[in-house]
Amino acid sequence: MNHKMILRTAGRIVALEGALLLLPALCALFYREWTVALVYVGVAALAAVFGLLLVFLTRRCDRTIYAKEGFVTVALAWILLSVFGAAPFVLTGDIPAYHDAFFETVSGLTTTGASILPDLTALSRGGLFWRSFTHWIGGMGVLVLMMAIVPDANGRSIHIMRAEMPGPVVDKIVPRVRDTAKILYFIYIGLTLAEVVFLLAGGMTLFEALVHAFGTAGTGGFGIRGDSIGSYSPYLQWVITAFMLLFGVNFNLYYLILIGRFRSAIRSEELRIYGTLVVILTGVIAWNIRPLFSGAGEAIRQAAFQVASILTTTGYATADFNLWPNLSRMILFLLLFVGGCAGSTAGGLKVARVGILVKTAGKELNRLRHPRSVNAVRFEGKPLSEETRTGVVNYFALYAILLAAVLLLIGGEPFDMETNISAAISCFNNVGPGFSAVGPMGGYGGYSVWAKMVLSAAMLLGRLEIYPIVLSVSPSTWRKK
Amino acid sequence: MNHKMILRTAGRIVALEGALLLLPALCALFYREWTVALVYVGVAALAAVFGLLLVFLTRRCDRTIYAKEGFVTVALAWILLSVFGAAPFVLTGDIPAYHDAFFETVSGLTTTGASILPDLTALSRGGLFWRSFTHWIGGMGVLVLMMAIVPDANGRSIHIMRAEMPGPVVDKIVPRVRDTAKILYFIYIGLTLAEVVFLLAGGMTLFEALVHAFGTAGTGGFGIRGDSIGSYSPYLQWVITAFMLLFGVNFNLYYLILIGRFRSAIRSEELRIYGTLVVILTGVIAWNIRPLFSGAGEAIRQAAFQVASILTTTGYATADFNLWPNLSRMILFLLLFVGGCAGSTAGGLKVARVGILVKTAGKELNRLRHPRSVNAVRFEGKPLSEETRTGVVNYFALYAILLAAVLLLIGGEPFDMETNISAAISCFNNVGPGFSAVGPMGGYGGYSVWAKMVLSAAMLLGRLEIYPIVLSVSPSTWRKK
Repeated sequence: MNHKMILRTAGRIVALEGALLLLPALCALFYREWTVALVYVGVAALAAVFGLLLVFLTRRCDRTIYAKEGFVTVALAWILLSVFGAAPFVLTGDIPAYHDAFFETVSGLTTTGASILPDLTALSRGGLFWRSFTHWIGGMGVLVLMMAIVPDANGRSIHIMRAEMPGPVVDKIVPRVRDTAKILYFIYIGLTLAEVVFLLAGGMTLFEALVHAFGTAGTGGFGIRGDSIGSYSPYLQWVITAFMLLFGVNFNLYYLILIGRFRSAIRSEELRIYGTLVVILTGVIAWNIRPLFSGAGEAIRQAAFQVASILTTTGYATADFNLWPNLSRMILFLLLFVGGCAGSTAGGLKVARVGILVKTAGKELNRLRHPRSVNAVRFEGKPLSEETRTGVVNYFALYAILLAAVLLLIGGEPFDMETNISAAISCFNNVGPGFSAVGPMGGYGGYSVWAKMVLSAAMLLGRLEIYPIVLSVSPSTWRKK
Repeated sequence: MNHKMILRTAGRIVALEGALLLLPALCALFYREWTVALVYVGVAALAAVFGLLLVFLTRRCDRTIYAKEGFVTVALAWILLSVFGAAPFVLTGDIPAYHDAFFETVSGLTTTGASILPDLTALSRGGLFWRSFTHWIGGMGVLVLMMAIVPDANGRSIHIMRAEMPGPVVDKIVPRVRDTAKILYFIYIGLTLAEVVFLLAGGMTLFEALVHAFGTAGTGGFGIRGDSIGSYSPYLQWVITAFMLLFGVNFNLYYLILIGRFRSAIRSEELRIYGTLVVILTGVIAWNIRPLFSGAGEAIRQAAFQVASILTTTGYATADFNLWPNLSRMILFLLLFVGGCAGSTAGGLKVARVGILVKTAGKELNRLRHPRSVNAVRFEGKPLSEETRTGVVNYFALYAILLAAVLLLIGGEPFDMETNISAAISCFNNVGPGFSAVGPMGGYGGYSVWAKMVLSAAMLLGRLEIYPIVLSVSPSTWRKK
């Protein structure tokens, strides 16, 4: 294990976070929150010093890393990001208890959007900005951002990219990792700016537009109002619906569109499953909830918003779907697991994995019918390698086992089963809201410190797709050969 | 597809059910329920005529069958068994509506134990006897019973046995299928009789002892009192706890003990995991519920009974665990999935599958650490074939997808989410009780006809371990090559 290189990369990430912390400081200055600005500048300096010190101390080290180091680096970097990122909330008094601030920061960075805050209006502007900005940082991945900035000497950082990017099949869009990272961030920033423009056009202030664009882009879900997006205009709700869906699409497809291969992009099987799910489920829910609303248009808007929000694991809400009819609630419950497309900023299992799981199940049936026939699972028009297919199915086994563990660990919390079960599932899949007490108009504030730590771990497991965290805490990773 | 041989075997099974229906007729006669007795004799005759007619009409057919025919035979046989088995409930007036009677019979045969009956005391003795006897028939499998009785000309019936017996690795105990079936039934009958003796010793009447021994042996859970086993003496509760656990063990181990290989039997890895689960979870729950009971002894008895009942998917209860603390309820909720050992009469995923899933997940982690190393998953002391391992993981994928489908299909029922979710999981895993309205003191009577049919399908899917039912309804099974 190349400890030095792991620490070196983690150091760079923390230093980068230091730089990013200056943005909320600027925001605070703009709103004349002097103490808040001071706190953010102070923590930024602290993070920069800590990070650069790590980089300095490891300046003489072997740059070679393998998959194992990639996983550990990502896990360590994300934990350090959360530890430093939580500090300003405590120091500004926005969130007095450190464990609450830690939960909120992990929830932000992992783009979960589960909140412990009972009243958002009590927060400073700087705090609200940072809270939503963590979504944007975590959405595309801060290590990917670093790769876009820092030159990579030996091209080994694909291991880090693989470990941080969501989805079963991560590959470089272009031969060089650094160029891939740059392209991804170029698209990410472009789409975010487009959303800001559309939101401004709908009458949001720049602050509101930025905060909600960050929340949508990262598929996070932190807002600034108690009723999430409920009190914004139908136009704004539709804009956010559209962008939630756009950010749930595999970014490779945008690259294909950019280089003019539009037809290849829309031929994507995952995109088609994703689109079909959105259309059908919106239709079913709209039909199911139509008695609750004044007209078909409103029912469709409410259904589309909630389906897009849960499927892409954003977690914004325009209605308290806790009060919707059972069928709609069950659909949303099951959607908690699915998530957006691989290679998007969304959490969850990912549409590609669900698709591969369904096809694998079909293949198994075929094997039983014709035990001697060999037939590979096809996905995206080509046969899946047995390695990818096995990887997906094994990932699902691990996913289920860890979800059961999270359920067990928070099972004793004093809420009804619906709350505890949906809280665990929602955090593990980086959605945010669940049902009952953790519904879209509720929150996680009532959970014990223990449960908040377990759910924080669940959010990190979900965002980093299990392996980085589990491998980092497993003793045999550290054993010398 | 050898249609004739499928019909022939199904015919035999229905004729066999005709013979088995004479037992409740006898019971009714004993209790001087003349009309009830007449109904059971009538249905018995009808089933016998129908079955033998099928056998007669297919007398000139090719006896060769393959795996595909095995699956379809089992599915068809079980559906016919349920269709005929439900008839006497309707004709005696015990259960007026046919769809309710069908649900109850499927629940009985699949050893689920989910009931739509609001008041058991209103049932005839004959009806109560038949209801519990279906557990006993379905527990070890009626096709296995047929194999023990009818000589098999060409040894092909292993395909049927594989399709009906639960668990990932079914193999003949002895070279001939017929002898294997005989040995299994010998052990099954022996253990059932032993339980009857123990129950009689505790003061149960012969009727009560038989009914509860059937319910335990099949790991079914139908009783005759509204509070299940709650009002029986501690001695009787312990006897039933012990026998639930015994019937949840792989029957191959009893055979090993019978032929003197006691050490091989207790070395079984699955048995050890099973035992460990029982001991630890009983301990945790007993500690968790101790404030509710007068002493440690009672808390341990209650905990042990409920853990054994849910883990083995029996579904008897001595307490309304709906009212227990959250941690205990969450443990029981997660146990709904596990099930007993492979090759037992229990439902659920089976301990062996859960064990293999956990080990596969561990293997996947190892693969990521050392991408080039080859390391097989070991189970029961030897490396698992890649085929078995893949089969288990793929089964789990199919299991999860179908469970999601069941949840979606009953999601619109007018109950709280806890009820609908636990009802689907409990039926699919053949447990019986769930939480909230379908808790141990509740029932399934309030569900719509649609939901009862969906849950019946779920119970059959669970008992027959998915493939027979899904393959039978899938068009490509029937397509000519």
